[in-house]
Amino acid sequence: MINIDVNEKYFSKINSRERAIFEGAISMGALFHQFIGTPINSDSAESLEIAIKKSIELQPGIEKVEIAINKEKLNKKLSDFEYIGLSEDLLDVKIHSKIDDALAIVRMEFIKELNYPLMYIEDIIQK
Amino acid sequence: MINIDVNEKYFSKINSRERAIFEGAISMGALFHQFIGTPINSDSAESLEIAIKKSIELQPGIEKVEIAINKEKLNKKLSDFEYIGLSEDLLDVKIHSKIDDALAIVRMEFIKELNYPLMYIEDIIQK
Amino acid sequence: MINIDVNEKYFSKINSRERAIFEGAISMGALFHQFIGTPINSDSAESLEIAIKKSIELQPGIEKVEIAINKEKLNKKLSDFEYIGLSEDLLDVKIHSKIDDALAIVRMEFIKELNYPLMYIEDIIQK
Amino acid sequence: MINIDVNEKYFSKINSRERAIFEGAISMGALFHQFIGTPINSDSAESLEIAIKKSIELQPGIEKVEIAINKEKLNKKLSDFEYIGLSEDLLDVKIHSKIDDALAIVRMEFIKELNYPLMYIEDIIQK
Repeated sequence: MINIDVNEKYFSKINSRERAIFEGAISMGALFHQFIGTPINSDSAESLEIAIKKSIELQPGIEKVEIAINKEKLNKKLSDFEYIGLSEDLLDVKIHSKIDDALAIVRMEFIKELNYPLMYIEDIIQK
Repeated sequence: MINIDVNEKYFSKINSRERAIFEGAISMGALFHQFIGTPINSDSAESLEIAIKKSIELQPGIEKVEIAINKEKLNKKLSDFEYIGLSEDLLDVKIHSKIDDALAIVRMEFIKELNYPLMYIEDIIQK
Repeated sequence: MINIDVNEKYFSKINSRERAIFEGAISMGALFHQFIGTPINSDSAESLEIAIKKSIELQPGIEKVEIAINKEKLNKKLSDFEYIGLSEDLLDVKIHSKIDDALAIVRMEFIKELNYPLMYIEDIIQK
Repeated sequence: MINIDVNEKYFSKINSRERAIFEGAISMGALFHQFIGTPINSDSAESLEIAIKKSIELQPGIEKVEIAINKEKLNKKLSDFEYIGLSEDLLDVKIHSKIDDALAIVRMEFIKELNYPLMYIEDIIQK
């Protein structure tokens, strides 16, 4: 449990909205760098999606992880060995991070014009 | 498919027994360094075991992966945030690697006396 | 270059202070999950510190990374093979993330009482 | 130190040539899955090459690691943020693994025709 002492001692300089952003961003950076490179094909993709979701939802403040691996694109990229390492252009992820009354939705998607898996704040809601 | 050209061009210097050892060892090194650090608790452990198994079984020559994450030990190591990063002392893995008539069983287990997650050949069978 | 279109299109919902927090947090999550498990001993530690620093300083908004791997603790944890995988209790990291006039200092250190490598905002400065 | 008990207890089923293959293959799998995804550009590439070399040379039986990250290709792949995650097509690696009188040279290079970073035995020498 994130207890009150931790909040007071380590998070007194930021408000709940900023903390929601903070925790969502940590988890997105974690997700990317933990799982990129994992051997995958379209048959194994769902089991990896489930494991990633369950894993990242354990992190502080994370309420929900939605993840989609693009199987169509994956099939087009297959090596002669019929799998590839998970690559950044296959991932579309939303992480819902909630601290008190603030909900941040952090998104990662590959932006072709930037040639880059951009992480950004898709929405942020104060309830 | 591992086609004949690959075998002739790249694996002519070793026999099937050596190739089974080679492929099993690659996959064990891969498994360890891909998944160590993944957030985990006893509720998420099974989904990670499944994803690891399905992922590593895609690699060349791998017939079967048996993996057990020690949940009892995991529960004893939990942080105050009720999860930890997957650590080497929690893993017991057998990878069955088969090339033609040679089957290698590569094992990884944490050896307390060595303070080390040792990878070794548990058995090797010529059929 | 982070160009103006990206800022307008993807970061219009947050201010520069929040964006500094966001980018610093992504990079801390990235650092942890990319490098945990890397084989290390006290002789190789400095080269790893340098590579981590140079790598993470490439990420958006990151001005400076300060990283210290605890060599004394590392030496006490060595396996019989005279190295270990980089573990969370050995790391102390500060990431300086700057967006416009806002500077966030994101810290990670292992907190013994929590049995956890806590990531938090050490300071945040509006210039 | 790899002491005699370990050898007798865990490696009695294979000879020195097979053990050299085994250890070299583990280290190649480890290298790939530890470092793929690391933020990199042509300025940071050398520091990463050094860190990878020093890290993998710590593993059992590894005598020498030669690694080249293709900077020309890297520069052509850069994102708008002026770096990318280390990808499999940029790596060319030779690992020299030596057990007693047997030396295995394990190679990884990206084979365009296979669309795959193939790991194979480049040479194996009994001295």
